[in-house]
Amino acid sequence: MLECMAELHTLTKLPRIGWIMAGVPEPESVSDHCFETAIIAYILAQQLDEPVDMGKVLAMALFHEVGEVRLTDLPRRSSPYVKEFKREAETQASRDILHGVAENVLPLLQEMHELKTVEARLVEAAEELQIITAAMYYAKENRGDISEYRRDAAKYDALGIEPARAVADVVKKRLGEYLGDRPYWELGYSRNATLPDTE
Amino acid sequence: MLECMAELHTLTKLPRIGWIMAGVPEPESVSDHCFETAIIAYILAQQLDEPVDMGKVLAMALFHEVGEVRLTDLPRRSSPYVKEFKREAETQASRDILHGVAENVLPLLQEMHELKTVEARLVEAAEELQIITAAMYYAKENRGDISEYRRDAAKYDALGIEPARAVADVVKKRLGEYLGDRPYWELGYSRNATLPDTE
Amino acid sequence: MLECMAELHTLTKLPRIGWIMAGVPEPESVSDHCFETAIIAYILAQQLDEPVDMGKVLAMALFHEVGEVRLTDLPRRSSPYVKEFKREAETQASRDILHGVAENVLPLLQEMHELKTVEARLVEAAEELQIITAAMYYAKENRGDISEYRRDAAKYDALGIEPARAVADVVKKRLGEYLGDRPYWELGYSRNATLPDTE
Amino acid sequence: MLECMAELHTLTKLPRIGWIMAGVPEPESVSDHCFETAIIAYILAQQLDEPVDMGKVLAMALFHEVGEVRLTDLPRRSSPYVKEFKREAETQASRDILHGVAENVLPLLQEMHELKTVEARLVEAAEELQIITAAMYYAKENRGDISEYRRDAAKYDALGIEPARAVADVVKKRLGEYLGDRPYWELGYSRNATLPDTE
Amino acid sequence: MLECMAELHTLTKLPRIGWIMAGVPEPESVSDHCFETAIIAYILAQQLDEPVDMGKVLAMALFHEVGEVRLTDLPRRSSPYVKEFKREAETQASRDILHGVAENVLPLLQEMHELKTVEARLVEAAEELQIITAAMYYAKENRGDISEYRRDAAKYDALGIEPARAVADVVKKRLGEYLGDRPYWELGYSRNATLPDTE
Amino acid sequence: MLECMAELHTLTKLPRIGWIMAGVPEPESVSDHCFETAIIAYILAQQLDEPVDMGKVLAMALFHEVGEVRLTDLPRRSSPYVKEFKREAETQASRDILHGVAENVLPLLQEMHELKTVEARLVEAAEELQIITAAMYYAKENRGDISEYRRDAAKYDALGIEPARAVADVVKKRLGEYLGDRPYWELGYSRNATLPDTE
Repeated sequence: MLECMAELHTLTKLPRIGWIMAGVPEPESVSDHCFETAIIAYILAQQLDEPVDMGKVLAMALFHEVGEVRLTDLPRRSSPYVKEFKREAETQASRDILHGVAENVLPLLQEMHELKTVEARLVEAAEELQIITAAMYYAKENRGDISEYRRDAAKYDALGIEPARAVADVVKKRLGEYLGDRPYWELGYSRNATLPDTE
Repeated sequence: MLECMAELHTLTKLPRIGWIMAGVPEPESVSDHCFETAIIAYILAQQLDEPVDMGKVLAMALFHEVGEVRLTDLPRRSSPYVKEFKREAETQASRDILHGVAENVLPLLQEMHELKTVEARLVEAAEELQIITAAMYYAKENRGDISEYRRDAAKYDALGIEPARAVADVVKKRLGEYLGDRPYWELGYSRNATLPDTE
Repeated sequence: MLECMAELHTLTKLPRIGWIMAGVPEPESVSDHCFETAIIAYILAQQLDEPVDMGKVLAMALFHEVGEVRLTDLPRRSSPYVKEFKREAETQASRDILHGVAENVLPLLQEMHELKTVEARLVEAAEELQIITAAMYYAKENRGDISEYRRDAAKYDALGIEPARAVADVVKKRLGEYLGDRPYWELGYSRNATLPDTE
Repeated sequence: MLECMAELHTLTKLPRIGWIMAGVPEPESVSDHCFETAIIAYILAQQLDEPVDMGKVLAMALFHEVGEVRLTDLPRRSSPYVKEFKREAETQASRDILHGVAENVLPLLQEMHELKTVEARLVEAAEELQIITAAMYYAKENRGDISEYRRDAAKYDALGIEPARAVADVVKKRLGEYLGDRPYWELGYSRNATLPDTE
Repeated sequence: MLECMAELHTLTKLPRIGWIMAGVPEPESVSDHCFETAIIAYILAQQLDEPVDMGKVLAMALFHEVGEVRLTDLPRRSSPYVKEFKREAETQASRDILHGVAENVLPLLQEMHELKTVEARLVEAAEELQIITAAMYYAKENRGDISEYRRDAAKYDALGIEPARAVADVVKKRLGEYLGDRPYWELGYSRNATLPDTE
Repeated sequence: MLECMAELHTLTKLPRIGWIMAGVPEPESVSDHCFETAIIAYILAQQLDEPVDMGKVLAMALFHEVGEVRLTDLPRRSSPYVKEFKREAETQASRDILHGVAENVLPLLQEMHELKTVEARLVEAAEELQIITAAMYYAKENRGDISEYRRDAAKYDALGIEPARAVADVVKKRLGEYLGDRPYWELGYSRNATLPDTE
């Protein structure tokens, strides 16, 4: 049991890599991301008409990055190189970490991935909302170049969770105000070398 | 709703003051403490024979420091000066922060304080376990002088949550091994000036 | 004697909480605040026509946060919850810390609080000036969202210390220039839930 | 050209993940690792009897982590989950990053991987030496629990680069002295859940 | 040999002082500056028509701050007080550090200083380019007040290395865009007290 | 006046370089060193039989590093290269910084340097005591390899300030206890290449 706790403790040490790439000083940890996702999901749930299984919601939110204990937080720009196997790797890592201690989390992660239940949609909506609110706080506090996150705010999908959409609208507006007309240059984020072997 | 989320976001910025006092570089935040308390409570719950209301357990763990958003994390050494009013201040602050957004958390905090239900005892046992495991990790990693926490490990009370007691025993042993025979000098932590007006 | 020194050493570890709340990375410590208050008071004193007792001025400046050794730096937003007892707590803590080692500081802290002597007004004017110059430096360096401090600069009271007023005018102007027209949103700083029991 | 420079600049932001996992505060960056690998290779080369192509050696050392710009530094514990595709992903990422700007680095990385030339063996020996000297410095400075690195020092392979072996012997001895008899507990580093699908 | 490596390891600990003065949180280290200078020199060299001795170029770039191991990175504002003896001190320090281990670096540093060979000009152009690109990244990421570096970009001298000039033109433009119309106040950077003994 | 304040503000940004070299994470700033020197001098003065001019004592303590605003904190290992001109450079820098604002500090710095008055000896004794107590705190908190400071404690000279000697004796003892029998290897700190031109 302590082994598993100690592994999950690692999440408090791992910086969210996107903020590192954006030059944010002292960025949030993966555990902070999970904590706030849970808090946001809880708050959103209060505004829903449907009943939700709160134990499930909070467990999903808290454990949804468990695979990062062993794989760390990979940046978006890694996507073209890892997308094929990343999900399988995460699933296996999660299984190894929780083995014999908290295995009932595994089906919850699967449920979250499938986005069919209200709980899954709520947590997913909360997770994405956490990301754009974090971007808004960083823009407000001049921490890093987070102009790229305008796009995340713009394409935010509330997955039918209405209060999430309402909050996201305010966040989008405020983020825009804080960023002002700063130029956005995709410095080092993407290059499209069309190479035969990536096809 | 966003106001409340933004206030709770503050927890990711507040360092746990005990570790600051102990000279731990880059100490965990209050949000990390809450995140791990929730994780530990979840894991311990898997080993209990009694059924527990997991939504309640995780909500208690996640929100139990909500008052610190406005009061910050006060160190133990403040206790003689603030103990009379601290709890009332926390209660009021929690009420103001959650007002109109997540007020159903308030009775959970009261329940946790009373330590009568299994959920309350579980979260409390998890919280104290989080503290001594954090001490153990810091001792392991040579971060700060945490020799004072030997005492916390020694007097750990599992509140009847048997798996918590079992883990705490291992933690106590390992903490002792990592600290070795380092001298413990209560440098600046306590002084007992008996002054008329403190009585 | 070493106990007292070691306690006061704690001031070098405590971050000024206002800057933490404002998202300033690597904010100044309480000791930095005291150091600069002393430096500023010294410089202002050179421009005064009245003679000042410099030993008293510098001692006041250096020791004026001594209570924070045990109580830490509480944020403004704690004010509604702690204002009634905070001053008494600080006085007691200061007494315990300096007991038998530097008790002659205690009447100086009292004198500073009463703002009657020129030395007290000078140190108080210097302290507030330190706060708005720090805000100006942070605005200049893009560290955190310190737009709230526009208000501190606007309502600066030099307490009759003319050179302080002159410097504050420049600081106010520069702070305004650095902040530009950034929106100020009191994110998480205040909420006015009128609750019966706070009255 | 600036795009490529800006991407490689990312290496100065990426922490070496092994030290993060080990709880080292303010750990070295990937760029520091590359810088020191180059420095060490240069110094070792002075002691070799064979002539080496120094331009090749230093270029290999400086660019050998180029793929991490997009993939970041993956920890050892990720190995069971990523080993099959990691090398291919790195190769592709390196190609995309250096495309049209410094493509002549690519065959050097291939050469380094094959360990056939003296230059390749020298850089590889320097890289591993950098890791164990870093561990020694951290042990000396009490930064993190690096007891795991005793094993890296023990199994150090100089690949025939004699001066590297000589330095490694001293490093191994000093590392042992600094670590003393600290217990080594593989906290969170490995678990052997034999699962059908990992075979 | 290990002594020399350990001394050069110090470069990874030394912050570039100019960024400290500019209020940049978590600024780059001297080793990062050297690493990027080498990387940039390598990239620029690919675009040159003349052949260059790459071993020499990279060694110059990597070792050009070796004297700072003992003298640290002195800020520009120290110049009036130290300029007479600084170069001699650096030369001596470099000699002591590399003594008996990598003395063939010393003539390279002399060559770099004289700026006569293409290798020397290339590394010097790369070094200055590293400084203004770093300023551009910091401006982009809102880290510190780097408005002073507009001047560095404006007076950039490519020393005949044409691709360096081309990149510098883009950097200058982008730096200007990121800085916008922020006021530049030479806060604390220079004062011209004409004193007899400085003449 | 604000220019001078802003320059002195720089002292809060400058790390004490000795601790950087020793691998101390988040080391104290120059301003922290000055603050504690002043505090210690104040406390020691309470135990002296002789009267002291406290305004002078505290001003000396607060301003004694003023030259570092422009020269930064040079490490011990720079001594062989800079000792001839360092003092003159500091004097000139101090004069430029304080010019027209607080010039009456200059004779105090001279007085402190001459060590003739009780105030000068008191501040000097306090400054050295600050250094060894800082070393003791770092040893206690496992921050960096400060074993070198055993020597500073051993050769501490109280300059006739008896209470300083008494405290230093306790510090020396505790420092020894915290360091235990850790090996001391002068890694990178000194090398005695006897070179003709250093004579």
